[in-house]
Amino acid sequence: MSVDFGPLPSRLPEVEQAPRMPAGFRAGAVRAGIKESGRPDLGVLATTNGPASVAAVFTTNRLAAAPVRLSRQHLAANGGHAVAVISTSGCANAATGAAGARDQARLVEGAAATLGQPPEQVLAISTGLIGTRLPVERLRAPLEGLIAGGLANTDAGLAALAEQMCTTDTRRKAATVRLGGATVTGVSKGVGMIHPQMATMLALILTDAVADPAQLQAALDSAVGRTWNQLTVDGDTSTNDTVFLMASGSAGVAGGPALAPAVEAVARSLARQQAADGEGATTLITCQVSGATNDAAARAVARAVVASSLVKTAVHGRDPNWGRIAAAAGNARCDGVPVEVEEGRLSIGIASVPVFAGRPLDFDAAALAARMDAAELLIRVDLGLGDGVGEAFGCDLTERYVIENSAYST
Amino acid sequence: MSVDFGPLPSRLPEVEQAPRMPAGFRAGAVRAGIKESGRPDLGVLATTNGPASVAAVFTTNRLAAAPVRLSRQHLAANGGHAVAVISTSGCANAATGAAGARDQARLVEGAAATLGQPPEQVLAISTGLIGTRLPVERLRAPLEGLIAGGLANTDAGLAALAEQMCTTDTRRKAATVRLGGATVTGVSKGVGMIHPQMATMLALILTDAVADPAQLQAALDSAVGRTWNQLTVDGDTSTNDTVFLMASGSAGVAGGPALAPAVEAVARSLARQQAADGEGATTLITCQVSGATNDAAARAVARAVVASSLVKTAVHGRDPNWGRIAAAAGNARCDGVPVEVEEGRLSIGIASVPVFAGRPLDFDAAALAARMDAAELLIRVDLGLGDGVGEAFGCDLTERYVIENSAYST
Repeated sequence: MSVDFGPLPSRLPEVEQAPRMPAGFRAGAVRAGIKESGRPDLGVLATTNGPASVAAVFTTNRLAAAPVRLSRQHLAANGGHAVAVISTSGCANAATGAAGARDQARLVEGAAATLGQPPEQVLAISTGLIGTRLPVERLRAPLEGLIAGGLANTDAGLAALAEQMCTTDTRRKAATVRLGGATVTGVSKGVGMIHPQMATMLALILTDAVADPAQLQAALDSAVGRTWNQLTVDGDTSTNDTVFLMASGSAGVAGGPALAPAVEAVARSLARQQAADGEGATTLITCQVSGATNDAAARAVARAVVASSLVKTAVHGRDPNWGRIAAAAGNARCDGVPVEVEEGRLSIGIASVPVFAGRPLDFDAAALAARMDAAELLIRVDLGLGDGVGEAFGCDLTERYVIENSAYST
Repeated sequence: MSVDFGPLPSRLPEVEQAPRMPAGFRAGAVRAGIKESGRPDLGVLATTNGPASVAAVFTTNRLAAAPVRLSRQHLAANGGHAVAVISTSGCANAATGAAGARDQARLVEGAAATLGQPPEQVLAISTGLIGTRLPVERLRAPLEGLIAGGLANTDAGLAALAEQMCTTDTRRKAATVRLGGATVTGVSKGVGMIHPQMATMLALILTDAVADPAQLQAALDSAVGRTWNQLTVDGDTSTNDTVFLMASGSAGVAGGPALAPAVEAVARSLARQQAADGEGATTLITCQVSGATNDAAARAVARAVVASSLVKTAVHGRDPNWGRIAAAAGNARCDGVPVEVEEGRLSIGIASVPVFAGRPLDFDAAALAARMDAAELLIRVDLGLGDGVGEAFGCDLTERYVIENSAYST
């Protein structure tokens, strides 16, 4: 058996982990009194020259939050365009019944009036505690002030929005790819209730390239399948997951075939930043799988490994307990069907050290434990059955995750 | 909306949480040096009067352990009968390649020779660390001694076997139902890597009623679907999961239609004992769901709730954060398809206190937190859509789970 236990080669462009505001957008955020911490909790992203093309992916949770339902309706009504996104944090506005839907509509209608646009041109995102109401009255004046004078077409404006989106995040997430004369940049939040299913946590990806909504949706669907849908922190899928991919066209250059890999590279970087900042996490776990019968099977195995509580706790303990990786791989299901895994053809590497190749291998456990004591860990699995490759992203499970989530209503 | 937030009525017979040895079996256990702790790690269950009828359910993990593969082969070869089960603990004998399979066969062949029976009449179960070898040479003499003089048709013999099966368990699991002139009794182990998929952790259910293998398999499949397949501790499915249901017939009375509910009552009690003793757990969580479009949908919702890391940590923190229960219910999938859940028809009760009924309800959070501080917690969900009912069993997620699973190779 000849397996390379190092990382798989990447076909994606280089990413800078910073927000770089594309032409045609402006953003900003303020403190409006939703978060008890007093941190910024109301943000606005707006275009500078009329509607942007928009693609979207939302949560599959059957109890979709009010901002998700409103954004779905507005995008359907206007054929995939928007002039603004209103972002609130500290309150999910989920499971709030008809009153919550009215709150969300009033917030968006107020923003639309200030912008001088029809409400259908305004979208919304929100995260935070489920079951609490948005303090809409309290938000009215800060929202008007923000739109009137607080938005800027600057990296700092986009960074302020990225900060505002955060809840239990310890740092903002941003990623940028340069695309000829255009830019693709993304910001995201979310470090708990993270187990996207055909959706993600909150993320905005912006470009000034020219692209219509259908082109954007194709690029976004492809990227989400390989990035956010391969991210798990705790196995719970949020009621509020939303990604918007928005193109202002202000750079005057077509996105073209390079747009999709640029979007995927940004999405992958954001997903990895989210995993690294997973609640209580100390280590970003990337599982890369090769040799599967197809790519979907490889992704399923990778996701099963990073989702395993026992793999996550072993990584936290810097314990090269590869048996848990093998067991997790053997449990993988793709669309409900068990993935083909054969013990005799299976290889496993931890931090590029071979530990299993059809049978247990001898390795220096103490040395490997020392290598595992890092901010990032690569787990490599080869199934020896075909050409399918895939990867998934997660984090270790720590006492602090339990403490954070048992001590507070979040 | 008129929903009863108390427990669902049961249609199952009463259970005694104790091992009661049926006629026709004998059992015992010894210390043989597999477990580093020095606790009993080699056990034998044997019949007293020739082969018993046997039904079995095994793990769906694609890396099934050597004892699972051997038992499957032997049951297929002899048409669902056995005279003995050899139980080892402290070593899973999983992912051990061809050498592990030979170890398992030698152990079972030695037992069969001592019993004067063909090897196909002997089954095997084992759990413990994945990837380590069984010390077969060291087990030979203790096994012969145990079979020759250490087995008894007594409750104490069965209790010794239940103790031997344990690994990270803090106590043995046993349950008994009296069935006219016969007895149905079960023992099980397993408090980590517990998320059975069409299978369970290790369990043996014994009866002296008369029943053929097909009758036993029907009763077992029905019971497993409603009990062990509704149990989760940590979302990981073991490589070694095995349940055997064995009938000696020694009581001379037919199991008849009362056998299946008796088996299910024993299985349900064992599954709940396993959940209550989940690694690091302080609270047994039972989620009962009514009003689903069918029973399978209700079971899926119940399982999604008890599997949610965020529900589990909220229960640990005695936090009546019902939004996490709602979000978990909204994520439920049945055979890969999202379960129908409508916010406006959904009701949730915690410890029999209504907290949501189409909209958030007012309740005394401090008083409910105090009620949640108990060894058992009932979460009631009504979907308001149909007559489907179901339940699932889990436990809280605690710092101690993380510490146990990060500090040791288990």
